[in-house]
Amino acid sequence: MHQKLRLGMIGGGLGAFIGGVHRNAAQLDNEYDLVCGAFSSNPDKSKASGEHLGLPASRVYGSYQELFEKEKQLPENERVQVISIVTPNHVHFEPARLALENGFHVILDKPMTFSLEEALKLQEVVERTGNLFCLTHTYTGYPMVKEARQLVASGKLGKIRKVYVEYPQGWLSTFKEGGSVESHDIKQATWRTDPKQSGIAGAMGDIGTHAFNLAEYVSGLSVTKINADINVVVEGRLLDDDGAALLKFNNGASGVLFATQIANGEENNVKIRVYGELGGLEWQQEDANSLQVKRLNHPTEIYRTAGGNYLSSFAQHNTRTPAGHPEGYLEAFANLYRNFALCVKARMRGEEPQPEWQDYPGIQDGVRGMAFIENVIASGKSDQKWIDFTI
Amino acid sequence: MHQKLRLGMIGGGLGAFIGGVHRNAAQLDNEYDLVCGAFSSNPDKSKASGEHLGLPASRVYGSYQELFEKEKQLPENERVQVISIVTPNHVHFEPARLALENGFHVILDKPMTFSLEEALKLQEVVERTGNLFCLTHTYTGYPMVKEARQLVASGKLGKIRKVYVEYPQGWLSTFKEGGSVESHDIKQATWRTDPKQSGIAGAMGDIGTHAFNLAEYVSGLSVTKINADINVVVEGRLLDDDGAALLKFNNGASGVLFATQIANGEENNVKIRVYGELGGLEWQQEDANSLQVKRLNHPTEIYRTAGGNYLSSFAQHNTRTPAGHPEGYLEAFANLYRNFALCVKARMRGEEPQPEWQDYPGIQDGVRGMAFIENVIASGKSDQKWIDFTI
Amino acid sequence: MHQKLRLGMIGGGLGAFIGGVHRNAAQLDNEYDLVCGAFSSNPDKSKASGEHLGLPASRVYGSYQELFEKEKQLPENERVQVISIVTPNHVHFEPARLALENGFHVILDKPMTFSLEEALKLQEVVERTGNLFCLTHTYTGYPMVKEARQLVASGKLGKIRKVYVEYPQGWLSTFKEGGSVESHDIKQATWRTDPKQSGIAGAMGDIGTHAFNLAEYVSGLSVTKINADINVVVEGRLLDDDGAALLKFNNGASGVLFATQIANGEENNVKIRVYGELGGLEWQQEDANSLQVKRLNHPTEIYRTAGGNYLSSFAQHNTRTPAGHPEGYLEAFANLYRNFALCVKARMRGEEPQPEWQDYPGIQDGVRGMAFIENVIASGKSDQKWIDFTI
Amino acid sequence: MHQKLRLGMIGGGLGAFIGGVHRNAAQLDNEYDLVCGAFSSNPDKSKASGEHLGLPASRVYGSYQELFEKEKQLPENERVQVISIVTPNHVHFEPARLALENGFHVILDKPMTFSLEEALKLQEVVERTGNLFCLTHTYTGYPMVKEARQLVASGKLGKIRKVYVEYPQGWLSTFKEGGSVESHDIKQATWRTDPKQSGIAGAMGDIGTHAFNLAEYVSGLSVTKINADINVVVEGRLLDDDGAALLKFNNGASGVLFATQIANGEENNVKIRVYGELGGLEWQQEDANSLQVKRLNHPTEIYRTAGGNYLSSFAQHNTRTPAGHPEGYLEAFANLYRNFALCVKARMRGEEPQPEWQDYPGIQDGVRGMAFIENVIASGKSDQKWIDFTI
Repeated sequence: MHQKLRLGMIGGGLGAFIGGVHRNAAQLDNEYDLVCGAFSSNPDKSKASGEHLGLPASRVYGSYQELFEKEKQLPENERVQVISIVTPNHVHFEPARLALENGFHVILDKPMTFSLEEALKLQEVVERTGNLFCLTHTYTGYPMVKEARQLVASGKLGKIRKVYVEYPQGWLSTFKEGGSVESHDIKQATWRTDPKQSGIAGAMGDIGTHAFNLAEYVSGLSVTKINADINVVVEGRLLDDDGAALLKFNNGASGVLFATQIANGEENNVKIRVYGELGGLEWQQEDANSLQVKRLNHPTEIYRTAGGNYLSSFAQHNTRTPAGHPEGYLEAFANLYRNFALCVKARMRGEEPQPEWQDYPGIQDGVRGMAFIENVIASGKSDQKWIDFTI
Repeated sequence: MHQKLRLGMIGGGLGAFIGGVHRNAAQLDNEYDLVCGAFSSNPDKSKASGEHLGLPASRVYGSYQELFEKEKQLPENERVQVISIVTPNHVHFEPARLALENGFHVILDKPMTFSLEEALKLQEVVERTGNLFCLTHTYTGYPMVKEARQLVASGKLGKIRKVYVEYPQGWLSTFKEGGSVESHDIKQATWRTDPKQSGIAGAMGDIGTHAFNLAEYVSGLSVTKINADINVVVEGRLLDDDGAALLKFNNGASGVLFATQIANGEENNVKIRVYGELGGLEWQQEDANSLQVKRLNHPTEIYRTAGGNYLSSFAQHNTRTPAGHPEGYLEAFANLYRNFALCVKARMRGEEPQPEWQDYPGIQDGVRGMAFIENVIASGKSDQKWIDFTI
Repeated sequence: MHQKLRLGMIGGGLGAFIGGVHRNAAQLDNEYDLVCGAFSSNPDKSKASGEHLGLPASRVYGSYQELFEKEKQLPENERVQVISIVTPNHVHFEPARLALENGFHVILDKPMTFSLEEALKLQEVVERTGNLFCLTHTYTGYPMVKEARQLVASGKLGKIRKVYVEYPQGWLSTFKEGGSVESHDIKQATWRTDPKQSGIAGAMGDIGTHAFNLAEYVSGLSVTKINADINVVVEGRLLDDDGAALLKFNNGASGVLFATQIANGEENNVKIRVYGELGGLEWQQEDANSLQVKRLNHPTEIYRTAGGNYLSSFAQHNTRTPAGHPEGYLEAFANLYRNFALCVKARMRGEEPQPEWQDYPGIQDGVRGMAFIENVIASGKSDQKWIDFTI
Repeated sequence: MHQKLRLGMIGGGLGAFIGGVHRNAAQLDNEYDLVCGAFSSNPDKSKASGEHLGLPASRVYGSYQELFEKEKQLPENERVQVISIVTPNHVHFEPARLALENGFHVILDKPMTFSLEEALKLQEVVERTGNLFCLTHTYTGYPMVKEARQLVASGKLGKIRKVYVEYPQGWLSTFKEGGSVESHDIKQATWRTDPKQSGIAGAMGDIGTHAFNLAEYVSGLSVTKINADINVVVEGRLLDDDGAALLKFNNGASGVLFATQIANGEENNVKIRVYGELGGLEWQQEDANSLQVKRLNHPTEIYRTAGGNYLSSFAQHNTRTPAGHPEGYLEAFANLYRNFALCVKARMRGEEPQPEWQDYPGIQDGVRGMAFIENVIASGKSDQKWIDFTI
C-alpha cells in the first residue's frame, strides 16, 4: 500500500522562487502530502501562503518554533514527518536543528548554513539524532549526472587527471538589489547579495557551491587546495558576484572552477568536464539528458537518459519516461525528494535502503560546501597562492 | 483558498506507461487529488494498482461503469470531478461518453477514439453536455510551442507558405509484439500494433496524430488535401509502422509530414518548421526550451523558455522556473492538466477563463486527429494522388 | 616529381559564384595550374576576367569554341589537359562534348545538362571518347559523407529501409530575378529561375539534384518511383522554387526528399538520414565534420573527420588536417578536384587508380540527376500518384 | 592584372603537419606561387620534398642560409618575395632575421621564437628593416572571430568585464614522444615536448599562446597580471602538457584561460567567451561559422558567416562563399595569407592597405605571445599569487 509522507515547509511563501520548486518536486511522484507550514517570518504572509496552498488554517504557523511545538502535540499518524526548509541562508541552521531534535527528517536548501561553524554544529545534530537529512544540490539529481559519477567510479575513464566545472549566470549583471518594484529578480537579488542573509559569499555561496558539489560528486575526489580570484564586479554590491578558482584534488588531479552572475546573457548552464587517463566526459544542464563520453581515437558516445541497458542502475532508477522525453530541472529536483522518501520509508520499515535510493546529497556535502565557501573566500582575500582546503 | 480538483483515472494500472505520466502531470502543480480509479479491466489488477497508489479500497473500482455508478452516489463534495482516461484507443469512447453524460469533466489520451465515427459522436456528447474536455496532445503544452503559435498568429512571419513536421522513432524497428517477456516495450508494442485495440492505424495513430496536431496548432492552418505513403516495414506487423504525407493547407501553403517507428536509433525527437513570407521558425523536442526564429539576412534568434518579456503571455503562463532551468516532457504534460484545472475552476466560479488557460487541445483537435488517421490511411491505400481531407 | 595538371575554365568570369569556388577548389591541393579560359560569352568580359586572374592574354579566349581550336594547336606539353565548365545549364552540353571530343578531360558543374536528352548524348560521348569526366556534386566530397556511404556498404546498418534527404534554402523567398542592382543574389536569381538558361526546373534542378544524388550515393540504392509536389511559391517566378517528393527505392525502401528555396531564414543546410534494420545515420552540412551513427538501445556514436582509425580509407583519404580542424565546403569541393587529378594522372601513367580516387561523381550520376529533374517535374504535373523513375 | 607573389618556404618537408597547411592556405586564393624552399635541415630530405612539390631542383636548397644567398642573386622579377617559416620553434628567429635583413617579407609560424629575448630582437629587426611580418595565429583568421572583435570594439557589449578562453586537446594523453613508429602523432609529439626544440613551454607554447592571442584579439584588452597552475601530467614528459591561469586585464576585467593536451577525447575545440556590461559573446571552433551574441532578457542572436549586411566589413572581407557553405580551418589560415598578400602588394604599389587587409597578427602579437609563455611558466613555478605580466 502506497504511503505518502507528511511534509511541512519552513519558508517558501508566495512569491518565493525555490519554495515553489520544492513543492513541485515533492508533488511530482506522489510521495509527499504537504500538511503544514510556516511559510514566512511574517505570520500574516505565512497565513496567506498556507491558504493559497490549500492548507487548513490550523496547520499554518506563524513561526517555525510554533510549527514544531504544535506538530509535536498531534497524534503520531497526523504529525508532520519531513520538514523542508527553504528560507534564506541565515535561517537554515536553527530550524534544521530544531526539526532534527524534535524527531523530524529534514530536507534543507543549499548552501547548508550561514557559516561553516554552523555546518559543523548541524553535522553533530544529525549524527546525534540519527534522523535523515537531505541537502538539495539539484544537479546531482539528473540521471546523466548520476551516470557520470558511476562511469568515473567504474574506472572506465582511468585515473582522473582534470576536472573543469563552471556555472555562468547573467541575471546579476546590473545592480538590482533593494529595488522598489516587486519582481522576482529584485526579491532574489536583494537577499542573495545581503551579507546578513547570505553570509560571507554571494555567487560563491549561491552557485559556486553547486559547481563545487558537482565536481566532487562526479569525480569522486576531494578538493585539497584552492587558489581563487573573487570579484565584486557590479558597483555597490556587497558580496562577490564573480569568481574563479584553480583546484587540486586528493589524487593529484587538478581543476578549474568558475561561477559568475555577471556573464550578461547567460542563463544557468552549469557544466562539468572530467578527464582521466583513458577518456573523458562532459555534461551540461542545457542538454541535460545527454552525457558525452569521449575517448582518444574513438567516436564520442552520447549516453542518453533512458537510452538503454548500457546505463547504470543509478541512472535508470532516476528516470520516469522512455528515451526522448526530456526530463528537466524539476525532475532532477524531484529525484532528491523521491530518493529521500524511499529512504525515510525504508527506515520506517526497518529496512536497509537500496544504494540507488541513498544517492542523495547529505550532511557531508553540506559541510564540504560550507568549507568551500570559507576557503574560496579566504583564498580570494589571501596573497598566498595556494591555500589548503580546511574544514 | 486553493482548491484541488478530485481526479479519477480509468486505465493506467501498474506497468502502463502513459498512466504514470498522467499522474505525474496531475500532481506536479498541486491542482488535483487522485481520489478514485478503475485502473484495469481486470478487477484484481485494478485493485492492486489502486492500493499501490494509496487509494482507499472503497474507491478502487473493477470497471469504469462501476466507477461512474458509485461515484455518482457520493456526496457532491467527495465525488470525483475530473475523469482521466488512459486506456488503449478502443476503450476511449465509451468511458468518455459515460463520464461526460454523468456530469464529469474529461481528460482523454490521444488518439481520441477508435474511429472517426466515434469521434463525431463524442463531439456531439461534449457539445450536448457542455462539460469540459481535454485531449492530451502533449507537445502543444511546451512553452516554446505556444510561443511558436503566437509568433505565427502575430503575423511576424508573414503569410505561411511551408510546414515541415516530423516524428521519428525507432523503438518498433523489430517485431516485438506479443513477446512473452514482460517488458515496457513489449507491452506497449503489443497493443499499439493490434488493430483491435488501436484501430486502423499504427504509427499514424500513435505519433502521426501528434505531428498533425502540432502542424495545425502552430501554423493556425487546416490541412485540406493529403497524399500519403503508408508502409508496414517490419514483417508480420499488422499496422503501419511508417508513413509520410505531402500536405496542402487552407491558405494555399504546402507541407510535408512524416512519422515513423522504424528509424532505428531515433528516440522521440518530434520537430516542426514553419516558413512564411517574412521568416521561419523551428522547434524540436530534443531542445524543447529553444525556439529558433529565422529571417533572411538577419541573425537567427533563439527564443528561450523564461527568456524575458519578449515572450508572449502564453509562453510565460506555461513556465514554472527562471530561464536556464530545463522544463521537460512532464512539465509540458502538466501544463495541459493545469490549464484544464484552471478552466474547470473558472467554470465552477462562473467566470470566463483567461485565453491562456483555454489554450489546451480539445474536442475539435480530437475530431481532426481522427479525420487525419482516416484520411492518411485512405490516401495510403489510394491510387489517387491527392485526396481531399474530409471529416 | 609532382606534376600539376593544366586546367582551362569555361565560364566563371568576374562576379560569378561557382567559378570562384571551382578555382579555389582546384588550387587548394596544388594539383592544377589554371592556364587558359573562356570566362564569358562576352569576349571583353572574358578578357577582363582572364587578366584579373593573371592569365596571359594569349590564352584568354572569346569563346569556348576558340579555346578548343587554339589550345589544340599548342604543343602537347603546354596544351590544357582538363576543362572545367561552370556556365549556366544551357551551356553545359556543347562545351563538354567539344572538350571530350578534342581529347580533354572534363569537370562539369551540375545539373549536368539542359535536358535528359542532352545528358544521354553526353554519356555516349564520354563512353566513346574514353576521356575522364567529373560532375561536381560537392556534398559527396565531404569525408563524413564518404564515411556514411561506406558504413551503409559495410552492412553495419543492415538492409536499408528509409531515406530522408532535405535541402532547405531561403534566398529566393522574394522575387529578385532581373533586378537592376548588380548583386550576387540578383545575378544568381536571374539565371537560375530562367527556363531558357536553367531548363525545366528551378529548385529541383539547382538543389533537388544535390539531394537526390546524396540519397543515392549514401544509400547505394536507386530510386524507382516518385510522387512529387512541385510548387512555384513566389509570384511571378517562372520555375519551381519548392518541392517535395515521396520516393521508392530498388530494394523496397522508401524515402522523402525535399528541396526548397523559399524557406525564409534557412541557409544551405543539406541533410541526410538513412535507417536500416540494424541502425541509422545522420549527416548535415552545418556540422559537416560529424556523422551520427545510431542504434536502438546503444549510445549514438559521433564519427568525426580525422577522428581515428575507425574511419574508412575513403574518409581518411579525403581529409587534410588532424581531428578538430574543421574542413568545409571548399575542402569538399577540392576533394572532387583532387581525386579527379589523381585519376587523370594515373591514366597518364597507365595505372589503375585506387578505389578512393575513383570515388568522385561521374557521368552516371549526371544522367540520373537529369532523369530526376525530368521525373520529378513530370510527377509534379501528373495526377498519377506514383510514376516510374525512367531514363 | 592579377599578380601572384613568389613564395619560399623554410621547413615543412614531407610528413610535416603545419607545412602542408601553410601551402594549402597559400594556394587557396591564388595569391602565391611557391617558387623555392629549404624544406629540411637534411639536404636530401629537402630535395625530396621539393621534388614532390614540383619545384625545379635549382630552387630547392639544403639550408635556409643557402636559400637567401642564392635567391638574392636571382633577377628581381624571379627572386622570392615572401618567406614562410614553418620549422620547430628553435629555428624561427635566425631564418626570420635573415629573411627580413635580406629584404624579404616573412610569414612565421607561432610561437614566434624560442624565447622572449629572441622575440624582442626580432621586433627590432622588423622595425629596422620595415619589411612586412605575419605570425600565423590561425584563429584570428575566422570571419566570426573577426566579427567578435569588431563587436567588442563597437561598444555593443559595453565595458568588458570577463573573458573565458580555453583550448582543450587530448592527443598527448599518453607518452608518445620518441616512439619508433613513423606516425604523424609521434613526430609531432617528439619535437613539441622537447625543450631543445620548443623552448621552456609545451602546451602553453603550442596552444596556450593561441588562447592568449585570441583573448587579447577579441577583447581588445591586454593582460596585466597572471596566476597560473602549470602541470606535467604524463609521466616522463619534459614540458608542461596542461595548464590554467587566472588573468587580470588592463581595464580591470578578469579572465580564465586554460589549455591542455591531456583532455582525453578532446580534439581542438578552442573557445572564447567575452562578457561586458551590456552583453556577451561566444565562439568556438567546432561551430566556427556561428557567433553567439547574448543579452540579458533578449533572445540570443546567432551571427553567421556571410549571414548578411549586419556583419562588419572585416567579417565580410574574410569570407569566400555564401551563407551556409562552411568555411573551415584552412580558409581561416588562408585569410592570413591573403591579407598579408594584399598588404605586400599594396606596399609594392606604394599604397596604404585597407584596414581589413591589415588585420592579421604581426610582430606585436608575437612579442606578447612569447611574453605570455615566459610569464605563465614563471607564474607556474612561483609561490607568489599574482605576477605582473612583464615584457
